[in-house]
Amino acid sequence: MAVYTEISDDEIDRFVASYDIGTVVSLKGIAEGVENSNFLLVTEKGPHILTLYEKRVDPNDLPFFIGLMEHLARRGLTCPQPVRNRAGEALGEVSGRPAAIVTFLDGMWIRRPRVEHCAAVGAALADLHIAGEGFSLTRRNALSVPGWRPLFERSRERAETVTPGLVALIADELDILEKSWPTDLPAGVIHADLFPDNVFFLRGKLSGLIDFYFACNDFFAYDVAICLNAWCFEADGALNVTKARALLGAYEKTRPFSTAERAALPLLARGSALRFLLTRLYDWLNVPPGALVAPKDPLEYLKKLRFHQSVADVRAYGIEP
Amino acid sequence: MAVYTEISDDEIDRFVASYDIGTVVSLKGIAEGVENSNFLLVTEKGPHILTLYEKRVDPNDLPFFIGLMEHLARRGLTCPQPVRNRAGEALGEVSGRPAAIVTFLDGMWIRRPRVEHCAAVGAALADLHIAGEGFSLTRRNALSVPGWRPLFERSRERAETVTPGLVALIADELDILEKSWPTDLPAGVIHADLFPDNVFFLRGKLSGLIDFYFACNDFFAYDVAICLNAWCFEADGALNVTKARALLGAYEKTRPFSTAERAALPLLARGSALRFLLTRLYDWLNVPPGALVAPKDPLEYLKKLRFHQSVADVRAYGIEP
Repeated sequence: MAVYTEISDDEIDRFVASYDIGTVVSLKGIAEGVENSNFLLVTEKGPHILTLYEKRVDPNDLPFFIGLMEHLARRGLTCPQPVRNRAGEALGEVSGRPAAIVTFLDGMWIRRPRVEHCAAVGAALADLHIAGEGFSLTRRNALSVPGWRPLFERSRERAETVTPGLVALIADELDILEKSWPTDLPAGVIHADLFPDNVFFLRGKLSGLIDFYFACNDFFAYDVAICLNAWCFEADGALNVTKARALLGAYEKTRPFSTAERAALPLLARGSALRFLLTRLYDWLNVPPGALVAPKDPLEYLKKLRFHQSVADVRAYGIEP
Repeated sequence: MAVYTEISDDEIDRFVASYDIGTVVSLKGIAEGVENSNFLLVTEKGPHILTLYEKRVDPNDLPFFIGLMEHLARRGLTCPQPVRNRAGEALGEVSGRPAAIVTFLDGMWIRRPRVEHCAAVGAALADLHIAGEGFSLTRRNALSVPGWRPLFERSRERAETVTPGLVALIADELDILEKSWPTDLPAGVIHADLFPDNVFFLRGKLSGLIDFYFACNDFFAYDVAICLNAWCFEADGALNVTKARALLGAYEKTRPFSTAERAALPLLARGSALRFLLTRLYDWLNVPPGALVAPKDPLEYLKKLRFHQSVADVRAYGIEP
């Protein structure tokens, strides 16, 4: 839930005047998204989304994100499209923040995904990986293995206040993952944050993907592992194998896993679980006073990590090794 | 900023199916409003606002609020209109909360009101007071004089942590207001919360009023005093007499004050300042953990109260006694 920055009526009028989308009819902060401030901007031409990029986003990365959304759409993927102003620019400035207007995407995200939703997201993820081919810009994944230990160090001192034993567990896991993380799996542009709130459905069908602000170049199978964690666990912390099989099976219809990817999946799932455990832990311990964001429970990802630690091979996810 | 209650995709589909507004195209939480959860609900028929009434709203009051919006619109005032479902009901239930769909009102609220906005709101307030005539339901103002002392008692113990001397100042003010509060001024339906975020402007013109969830029967001039406090003070805490004169002057063009109202205005302004000081103080001291609401500064209203305490008569507000 995020609106970190206020926009005055004068400021929005001035900003929108540089675009060919008519005048402002309405502007409302949206209680969604965590990293940036998002607004529903209705103009005479209809609804749009206005995003103000807040301090966690590196302005140098914005051309990658903007360009990627355009590249993916050209390749047939449905996602918000940056609207360019009269000067042809997709990036401007509002209230001292870099800002972009993107098209409004119909659909809503699924609060309690069922098996068919998991299948749909598996297929869409494979489509995304294929559609990302040929994109000319690249972006390193700042939240992959080399980023985890520094992140852990920033939470280490107070981590035990969240749950006893957490420091040793994370330290051991980091040792293992740093040593055994694969180096040569098929890679390309990944979404890296394809949680249910970033996938829209309309009348039962997947209608588009949003929020490409963690997108980067990394292993495709790591992106699959992120989705496995985000979509296929039940509220009680148990993996739903039917959902996992549906997600992985649908993915493989478009982009079959290599033998190496299949073998690496449990480890990648551990890495993905640790990555979200670490960022949630940091956020949990560093809620700013007066924050308008409810931090997400890091322990949800501790449970997922423990599950994947116990996994022998991908049969645990419902597919054959 | 408020979304207190999550709505599942199944639940919203089921709820909207009972209305004749097509199927759900989009549902997004809105980071506006403090008392209730508000969502932008786009259906095949266009955008609407869905409000879920949270625990601070008494469900018994809902027919008053809903009926009032319909009454005011029939009398020519622009405000959101409750949409009735196929059974003719304007109230339903979503996620265990009473819920209503209202029409989407174009316009946006003014972050830094100028003199012309104050004039426009003065005129609209008078229109509202006139349009409220003949409304058959009534609602007592739960946040008028008899409600203030109990509210104060709930904050008293920790009030001095906000600013030293606050307890004595409030206690003295309560004594004075309880003794001298008028009893026979012109009364009717008042908005009781017409702050800038509840007044929309579109292309420089006032386009409508929203959020009638504090509306009640009380003195018209008390409503004027609330607007004086909400619209006519500068960020440094000083009254802008030009704005006050514009607001009061525009109001009087439609509904001139009686001599008694004119004489009571400084006292009513003190009461209004105390009312918002008390509710903000309570909210400030009782921010729930993980709240998605930033409490508003109670001391802003302490400054306003002190200003009105120093006022001899309405000349301080730029009009003649």
